[in-house]
Amino acid sequence: MKAILLVAHGSRRQASNDEVLALAGQLRDTARKNGIGIIHAAFLDMAQPSITEGVGACVRDGASSVTVLPYFLNSGRHVTRDIPAALEEAGKLYPQLSITIGAHLGESGLIKELLIRMIENC
Amino acid sequence: MKAILLVAHGSRRQASNDEVLALAGQLRDTARKNGIGIIHAAFLDMAQPSITEGVGACVRDGASSVTVLPYFLNSGRHVTRDIPAALEEAGKLYPQLSITIGAHLGESGLIKELLIRMIENC
Repeated sequence: MKAILLVAHGSRRQASNDEVLALAGQLRDTARKNGIGIIHAAFLDMAQPSITEGVGACVRDGASSVTVLPYFLNSGRHVTRDIPAALEEAGKLYPQLSITIGAHLGESGLIKELLIRMIENC
Repeated sequence: MKAILLVAHGSRRQASNDEVLALAGQLRDTARKNGIGIIHAAFLDMAQPSITEGVGACVRDGASSVTVLPYFLNSGRHVTRDIPAALEEAGKLYPQLSITIGAHLGESGLIKELLIRMIENC
């Protein structure tokens, strides 16, 4: 079964982490409609579940492949280095699992469109 | 004159900061069409210009008011505490300047739409 793991930075402010967990829940139906039976969220730092725990949750739910969506706006070190490194570690625990890292959120042209709308409302 | 200051976290990876600076440049025409003559980017941490420097650049360009757009996905401490604190400090240098903090990027419903499109492409 296919899974998506939405990976955010994580915050000391739990309300911020809850936003990410809620978002993953809201995307469940969309995922299922696209043949992806599992979706979980995880955090790079400062919050639980960790990336390894998030990958583990996907495996427990029956995932054979996981696509990781980095919930980040820019291609800083977290996206280019820290998330790949954490996934490499997690992958060692599940050598049968296929793990793919998708584009981070900021790569989408929609971000600029979103900012244009915000400016129009300034 | 009205100004927008796009405030991102900042990265040790300059290519990531350059993405934000380029984005501010790409939004210049949209800003002007909406009666906002000035747009700059600034960083909370790890990169230049700082928030104080960004506010200063707006003032030097003739701004009488600045709307700050936090380029952040979640309402963590950076959005709820650190950016307001940095702006309070910057404001002391320019007591005649009106500074308003707009919604952070993640508050937009478009973020969910964007993720839906990403999942549809998984």
